[in-house]
Amino acid sequence: MKGLIVLKFSFIFLLLASQSVMGSQKRKSRLQMKPCKQFVLYYHDILYGGIGGHDPVNATSAAVTNAATKLGNFTFGLMVIFDDPMTKNRNLHSPVPVARAQGFYFYDMKNIPSAWFAYTLVFNSSDYKGTLNIMGADPITEKTRDLSVVGGTGDFFMARGIATFQTDALEGTKYFRLKMDIKLYECY
Amino acid sequence: MKGLIVLKFSFIFLLLASQSVMGSQKRKSRLQMKPCKQFVLYYHDILYGGIGGHDPVNATSAAVTNAATKLGNFTFGLMVIFDDPMTKNRNLHSPVPVARAQGFYFYDMKNIPSAWFAYTLVFNSSDYKGTLNIMGADPITEKTRDLSVVGGTGDFFMARGIATFQTDALEGTKYFRLKMDIKLYECY
Amino acid sequence: MKGLIVLKFSFIFLLLASQSVMGSQKRKSRLQMKPCKQFVLYYHDILYGGIGGHDPVNATSAAVTNAATKLGNFTFGLMVIFDDPMTKNRNLHSPVPVARAQGFYFYDMKNIPSAWFAYTLVFNSSDYKGTLNIMGADPITEKTRDLSVVGGTGDFFMARGIATFQTDALEGTKYFRLKMDIKLYECY
Repeated sequence: MKGLIVLKFSFIFLLLASQSVMGSQKRKSRLQMKPCKQFVLYYHDILYGGIGGHDPVNATSAAVTNAATKLGNFTFGLMVIFDDPMTKNRNLHSPVPVARAQGFYFYDMKNIPSAWFAYTLVFNSSDYKGTLNIMGADPITEKTRDLSVVGGTGDFFMARGIATFQTDALEGTKYFRLKMDIKLYECY
Repeated sequence: MKGLIVLKFSFIFLLLASQSVMGSQKRKSRLQMKPCKQFVLYYHDILYGGIGGHDPVNATSAAVTNAATKLGNFTFGLMVIFDDPMTKNRNLHSPVPVARAQGFYFYDMKNIPSAWFAYTLVFNSSDYKGTLNIMGADPITEKTRDLSVVGGTGDFFMARGIATFQTDALEGTKYFRLKMDIKLYECY
Repeated sequence: MKGLIVLKFSFIFLLLASQSVMGSQKRKSRLQMKPCKQFVLYYHDILYGGIGGHDPVNATSAAVTNAATKLGNFTFGLMVIFDDPMTKNRNLHSPVPVARAQGFYFYDMKNIPSAWFAYTLVFNSSDYKGTLNIMGADPITEKTRDLSVVGGTGDFFMARGIATFQTDALEGTKYFRLKMDIKLYECY
């Protein structure tokens, strides 16, 4: 008789347990979430000035549209394609870049400088092999900007997360450096 | 003795429960899925006609490539970069835009008008702060078109879902309005 | 009395079960993961040579920027917009393309040929209706290259996975064919 009561209790608890399984669509609140992987990398963009321009040897990016839209005063419409080194510290001449950032950005606001990025981090080091794919807005005048890590391959198979940008250096139109804090919340 | 039987039963049920946990790769069928968040916004694209063109003050987008590919009759290859207001209702002059849509589209079919979009909804209102990142094809001649919400930040941390486009107004080459029905199926 | 002991045991096991539910953030290792859907498609890119160029009737893609960045020797910065047929076998003239690939790629390395893609597979066959959205780096000189499937709609509602590229044919600057092995690891 007691056993039967226990059985009933078990049913109830199992019901609760299975409901919490069914409800697995409900994820942890973002306040509770901790990254399953996190690292900081520095992005170095060395802009090529065009034919006869500065530094074709070291340049790692080039404008592919011109700023001739003349919409506003912040090169609205200027698009840049890049293959930029990513290093573990601020030093562009770090022994070995840990990854390349390959993709593009363009400027898209009339009244303040603001950009939009889509790119791939291509890792090929002793630490990691694989890629992370990232896209989002980069409102440059904000102290920090969050973009989405929308997918990954290799060591970053199916990863998702947030890439937080911070401007780390800005040298006219020739060079800028971004600190990218990569936080992955889905790891496999 | 009865207790032992109960224990066995419990084991079996627990086994079933834990298996359903292990099998959490299997998600709900898409027919059962309901959005965890949904809202409708209107996208207003006011195309700048170029230097000496119409309305540089109000324009919110500009072509960055020309249509000189001459492939087909639907401006194949024309790319537009935009920073467009998003409003809760059809009225472009709604008190305050609830978001900006920043990104680009281009036309990519020879025989019918068809576009491809990648952009970020940047929210900065009392309702929401954060971003949603969206990409996908926009086969304009279809009544509704589904694009992917591939990530989010801030109040939309790690969100995923569907953005359904509907053409809401079309005024020549100067202005068009899209109704965007944003349905998020992964919310944190 | 025995019943009570059983109840205690049940609690412990239920606790374990519910913890494994709570820990559902931990996914299966990528080595254990098998695709929930997989298929191979062939991508045919027939580049339009420009006005007066070759084959405007059959061309399915066109350059929208020129390679005049002159950065390196591999058309750094050249961007191509495409609406390419996808077939089940190598034959471009397969009875019916099962999908269109709509999007763009550009070349982004100075010293070797390397590209970056973002595009949508638009399915409209008896097998599938819906889309898959894909982005990532395509380091052409590698035997296989993995890109991210970042979202889907229709029959591919909310899908995620990997698209593995392999160069299948290359005919100068007029035509190339990629084998795309699409593996989805999140299906709804």
